[in-house]
Amino acid sequence: MTPAFGRVAVLGLGQIGGSLMHAIRDSGLDVVGYDVDRGGAAAASASGFPVTSTDAGAVHGADLVILAMPLPQVRAALTSLAPYLAPDALLTDVGTLKAPVLAAVRELLPRANFVGGHPLAGIEQSGWAAADPLLFRDAPWTLTIEPGTDLDAWLRLAELVCDLGAKPVPSTAAEQDAAVARVIGLPHVLAEALALTGLAGGPLGLSLAAGSYLSGSRVARTRPDLVATWCDGNPPLVTALDDVIARLVSARDELAAARSVLDLAEAGHTARINWEHRRFEPVELPAAFGELCAHGRDGGWITAVLRDADGVRLLGMRPSD
Amino acid sequence: MTPAFGRVAVLGLGQIGGSLMHAIRDSGLDVVGYDVDRGGAAAASASGFPVTSTDAGAVHGADLVILAMPLPQVRAALTSLAPYLAPDALLTDVGTLKAPVLAAVRELLPRANFVGGHPLAGIEQSGWAAADPLLFRDAPWTLTIEPGTDLDAWLRLAELVCDLGAKPVPSTAAEQDAAVARVIGLPHVLAEALALTGLAGGPLGLSLAAGSYLSGSRVARTRPDLVATWCDGNPPLVTALDDVIARLVSARDELAAARSVLDLAEAGHTARINWEHRRFEPVELPAAFGELCAHGRDGGWITAVLRDADGVRLLGMRPSD
Repeated sequence: MTPAFGRVAVLGLGQIGGSLMHAIRDSGLDVVGYDVDRGGAAAASASGFPVTSTDAGAVHGADLVILAMPLPQVRAALTSLAPYLAPDALLTDVGTLKAPVLAAVRELLPRANFVGGHPLAGIEQSGWAAADPLLFRDAPWTLTIEPGTDLDAWLRLAELVCDLGAKPVPSTAAEQDAAVARVIGLPHVLAEALALTGLAGGPLGLSLAAGSYLSGSRVARTRPDLVATWCDGNPPLVTALDDVIARLVSARDELAAARSVLDLAEAGHTARINWEHRRFEPVELPAAFGELCAHGRDGGWITAVLRDADGVRLLGMRPSD
Repeated sequence: MTPAFGRVAVLGLGQIGGSLMHAIRDSGLDVVGYDVDRGGAAAASASGFPVTSTDAGAVHGADLVILAMPLPQVRAALTSLAPYLAPDALLTDVGTLKAPVLAAVRELLPRANFVGGHPLAGIEQSGWAAADPLLFRDAPWTLTIEPGTDLDAWLRLAELVCDLGAKPVPSTAAEQDAAVARVIGLPHVLAEALALTGLAGGPLGLSLAAGSYLSGSRVARTRPDLVATWCDGNPPLVTALDDVIARLVSARDELAAARSVLDLAEAGHTARINWEHRRFEPVELPAAFGELCAHGRDGGWITAVLRDADGVRLLGMRPSD
């Protein structure tokens, strides 16, 4: 089988970029890295990875270019690499929000063959030192598909994502960002608010904070500027916050009236337990825009891209309820 | 050294009660259990622990009686055991909220020698099967002290708690409940609200929910009726909810105005990281009501109760900032 890509350039060598370098090399592809931060580049080089001193050097000759820098650096990176990107190269990224990157690419590199990506992986650490070749194992990985997306490019990228052990989830940028508002933005805002409010009662509370405070505020350990890039500029997060605030006000009013939080606790418990017990079934689906969008929207993902004489077949999993 | 207690009765054999049975036996004391639920009692008996078929049988001859049933069952338990409790026996409990138990004891057993207890331990599981002899290792363990508390009884219980590897924290019931509102009630209400709201956007979000949703909603796995007993009837939780709602509304308004959650993220991050990096120093303190209350209120705990010819000395740790 021909490898999906001849040479992969990873721009940005933090935790996600570093993990990509490891995982892509382990999958048998040529990979080269670059980071504007000399420290990250030096760490990658010391780990035995080819690293270039300019983005031009990394992008030149690459048929897959992965933007792995934080969102605020994406526009500058696109402008800088524009002259060196091969016309048939595939461009992707790994950021949490997909609409802002799509808009930047359409503005700055309107002819680029772009498929946005978002691996749902990463912990509260950051930097090359936190790189882990197994970081993507079993992780959902959004791959954006829009009217006009090059379907062949999308499939090649989905194949690579499967090779890294992850689960490609087809979605439009707008739909993925709305989902991310609820399952990433919202948990981070709540964790920050808890981290702060939980300890605002004085030293005794600091001694008594234990399990529920620890897990509830865990992701407040993340660098705050990164949290902001996952929350800011995503209007559905305002809706999600309105929703959670309404539930909290309702629970607060119950308690103030000497009633119970039991209704909320039962609903929350049921939601969490039902989610843990979801079941899935295998499905075969055509490589077509509408079917892929519907598959992701319905909670499905891709497990394999099969190519034979008759063309491409896609295998996936979908909720079986 | 004389053992602190000759015979310990544990009433209620769920996760906390079961862990107490293990840990107290391991510390070398005689322990006997009872549970209104025949299933729990049978499980304890099958594990080789002495179990009685009535609370009278367990309480008779015990000089320490530990109430380890959920809060809604405490009043019935107090009424039932009242005729059998020895006049000089020490009564304690392990519930999350201390004011309701103190009020029930004062009403139903006004002459009992009572010191409320709250081990900050436990996971989202429950039942005898979740019992763990190491559950209390390094756990803070509130021991209530009020005007009129028998100081000798308090010290004997603190000694036992130290023997179990835990950290006795002296506090009035009211002050501990106010702290618990912020570090237990609040995280649970937020986890329930997140569990529900995070998944309310449709199946795509269910696929993309990962690390931050998982840790943020972890304690929504707890039995909802238990969560309600940790939240209901604790007025300071209303204040804590008002506080967190105000912070969330502020973040929501920032986002709605196309600004950033960075201020909240930085404040939350700082609170969490500073909390992780707290430092402590050893201290010796007198066994006196005022000093003990102040020690707990200031974030300290007891590490040892030393008895010699000159009397009792208490060693502890306190924040050194």
